[in-house]
Amino acid sequence: MDHDFASALANIVGPDHVRTAPGELSVYARDATPLFHQPPGLVVFPCTTSEVSRILSLASDRGVPVVPRGAGSNLCAATVPVRGGVVLSMTRMTHIVEISTDEMLARVQPGVTTARLADCAEARGLLYAPDPSSRVTATVGGNIATCAGGLRGLKYGVTRNYVLGLEAVLPTGEVIRTGGRLWKDVAGYDLTRLLTGSEGTLAVITEATVALLPKPAETLTGVAYFESLEAASHAVGQIIANGIVPATLEFLDKKCIGVVDDYTGLGLRREAGAMLLFGDDGPAEVVTGNMSRMRRICTEAGAIEVTVAPDVAQSEALLAARRCSLPALSRLGSLTILEDVSVPRPRLAEMVSRIDEIADRFDIRIATFGHAGDGNLHPTCVLDPDDGDAVERAHKAFAEIFRTAIRLDGTITGEHGVGAVKLPFLGERLGQEQVELLRRIKRAFDPAGILNPGKLGS
Amino acid sequence: MDHDFASALANIVGPDHVRTAPGELSVYARDATPLFHQPPGLVVFPCTTSEVSRILSLASDRGVPVVPRGAGSNLCAATVPVRGGVVLSMTRMTHIVEISTDEMLARVQPGVTTARLADCAEARGLLYAPDPSSRVTATVGGNIATCAGGLRGLKYGVTRNYVLGLEAVLPTGEVIRTGGRLWKDVAGYDLTRLLTGSEGTLAVITEATVALLPKPAETLTGVAYFESLEAASHAVGQIIANGIVPATLEFLDKKCIGVVDDYTGLGLRREAGAMLLFGDDGPAEVVTGNMSRMRRICTEAGAIEVTVAPDVAQSEALLAARRCSLPALSRLGSLTILEDVSVPRPRLAEMVSRIDEIADRFDIRIATFGHAGDGNLHPTCVLDPDDGDAVERAHKAFAEIFRTAIRLDGTITGEHGVGAVKLPFLGERLGQEQVELLRRIKRAFDPAGILNPGKLGS
Repeated sequence: MDHDFASALANIVGPDHVRTAPGELSVYARDATPLFHQPPGLVVFPCTTSEVSRILSLASDRGVPVVPRGAGSNLCAATVPVRGGVVLSMTRMTHIVEISTDEMLARVQPGVTTARLADCAEARGLLYAPDPSSRVTATVGGNIATCAGGLRGLKYGVTRNYVLGLEAVLPTGEVIRTGGRLWKDVAGYDLTRLLTGSEGTLAVITEATVALLPKPAETLTGVAYFESLEAASHAVGQIIANGIVPATLEFLDKKCIGVVDDYTGLGLRREAGAMLLFGDDGPAEVVTGNMSRMRRICTEAGAIEVTVAPDVAQSEALLAARRCSLPALSRLGSLTILEDVSVPRPRLAEMVSRIDEIADRFDIRIATFGHAGDGNLHPTCVLDPDDGDAVERAHKAFAEIFRTAIRLDGTITGEHGVGAVKLPFLGERLGQEQVELLRRIKRAFDPAGILNPGKLGS
Repeated sequence: MDHDFASALANIVGPDHVRTAPGELSVYARDATPLFHQPPGLVVFPCTTSEVSRILSLASDRGVPVVPRGAGSNLCAATVPVRGGVVLSMTRMTHIVEISTDEMLARVQPGVTTARLADCAEARGLLYAPDPSSRVTATVGGNIATCAGGLRGLKYGVTRNYVLGLEAVLPTGEVIRTGGRLWKDVAGYDLTRLLTGSEGTLAVITEATVALLPKPAETLTGVAYFESLEAASHAVGQIIANGIVPATLEFLDKKCIGVVDDYTGLGLRREAGAMLLFGDDGPAEVVTGNMSRMRRICTEAGAIEVTVAPDVAQSEALLAARRCSLPALSRLGSLTILEDVSVPRPRLAEMVSRIDEIADRFDIRIATFGHAGDGNLHPTCVLDPDDGDAVERAHKAFAEIFRTAIRLDGTITGEHGVGAVKLPFLGERLGQEQVELLRRIKRAFDPAGILNPGKLGS
């Protein structure tokens, strides 16, 4: 990266906030996605909207790629600077500008972690509903840029349902403000939602106004073991058919149960074919009622064993089995590929059985856990990165998994995003006309194509 | 409109489904917006997606404007063919393709009325949550095109929160499918939400997949009278500060109370400064608990009188006062201008008092009712259309009302849309850079500018 350009950036943000040393750049060559890396030419750390605007104007003038980045916990290489250029780290913009209990909203800078926002809201008796598993490290800006999901998707929806307004900088440097402090606003195309999930390819988010909810009085969780995932899925269908939309409906397949039990020593029932975590939150009497109805439904659906935690602490202990699925699996091989597909809820068991069949056929190890309530699955492959042939087979297996999800009326990504990883499959999901339309939309925001090139809209 | 073109359309849809007689065209010159009318050159009634595609291809080739139209109940002239051309009536596409109780979703053609969808869902024990006041006549396609709101906005959100997927035809004739039967899907920019609220300027919606909820077991409504709207607003703030997010929080100002009482003879308390309707739905014990808490909060906030309806029938009777605000006001003059602004909830009373001050200053009659829970107000002006000077003063007053809403961190339209009416004010709300961006997005969909020209994106 040329020295003049680095100096010009240093003039904007101060010399301490531009990094060019190869050792530092290598940190920004990767995000949480395995097998994707490309060092940027430099990393810049702005701390105001105006600095972001000046950086983007400069980069636009010079045609330099800019990749906005929060915590770098992305799982589809959306924040890997695949064309080099500048990584724009938003980690200095960490101010919680305002939490209004009156209006049930928060205004935050993009670098605030989701967990910190949730904790600050909770201290005021409020809930920030989106809860992606990465919430402790991930930033609100990154979560908005990927429209992050989480464990509460069925009942609470995903990040997009909570974004009321955004301040964002266009690649050409103009600052726009979309939406605001309003529950109803239809003045103009819905740019708030268009930027949500745009993966840093249309604009750089510099502030967000998000909706909060009253904190639920009670939260309880239960666990049910079933002989098969089909039986667990049937129980899920029956829960919903009974008019219950629970806060939590998570599953682990047989392979996950064994691996998590090895890792945690929780004494899970390893002989079971599937484990279902079910939980609800809300007024105490409703939660208690729903938990006992769900317990009965699981039993009637043939559960081997059903336990409802008597309190929040024991509920958290049960959820630990789900939350540590990924670290438990990661121990089995030094390369862990955590994938993300989504199918209509009734097709969940069918999808998992197809995944198992594909894994067997390609002779790779895939265990699957995920969100049974909203049909979002995380097939996870563990392997030895030095076994090039196995890595190759894993890629082929995942390509087939994505195509299978599409054939089952599903999608190639439920909550992780497209990034560089899924871009080659986007046409199969959306059709070529729609991919072309996305490109035209991208150009409407970013005529020079400087913002996160090689990703969505490319 | 040239004869060849009409013949070509007749070849697509059949001669019975193209109308060119001046008497028929005059019906399609207007929607529910007063003072805006322009007859189209012809009206065409397709009945399949493929017909819509062929019509749009033909219109694109010839550069003829096409204005998609549902029931024509729009209130911002969004469906008035201000540049002439073709009105594309979606009223033959009225098939409810599917209601899935398993998946809690419905697939419908755009011409289905919202009330019919809601009734069919209810018959299966499900709720279609969006409930704009126009629901009996308005179509689902039109409601999606305007991102319609309604009385349940605070608790349930607006139409956009319920659209899972769309089939739509681009102005150039390509058919795209966005989203689907999935609660989580981040494959690509969020075109589902971008089309929702795009007012027929980006694509023509030919099918929608919408999310349903379990039907609430109980629904109750109460009414509280206050000496002033400030006192009613304070009660609303206290309800929310107590962690209650009720299904209904509607208000009528003093002028509306009198007019509605004259119209209905319900025996409302005309001496009150404001009437607040509050209600909730959900499990019976929660609703009963919330209703008694809201009753107490209203009393503590100084309510003159509070009544909670003991059952659904009496709840409906109370809501009738709110639902007939518009017809009651319409009796007072042959021209009724129903407007729509939105402000942050705590600024509601301030906004109404500004509206009153503006109405006095311009010597026009404005009464205001609306959604106290989400800050969405409907100042309504009644006047004599033959009094040109009064009409002129009303326009000036509303322009000032829109600007006042913007100054109070609000917006020029909460739920009715931009259409032709608000387009001149859009730049003041969004800023000129954002208006330019909307135009570039419009061109990405509609390079020839044939779809609903003179509206959003123009």
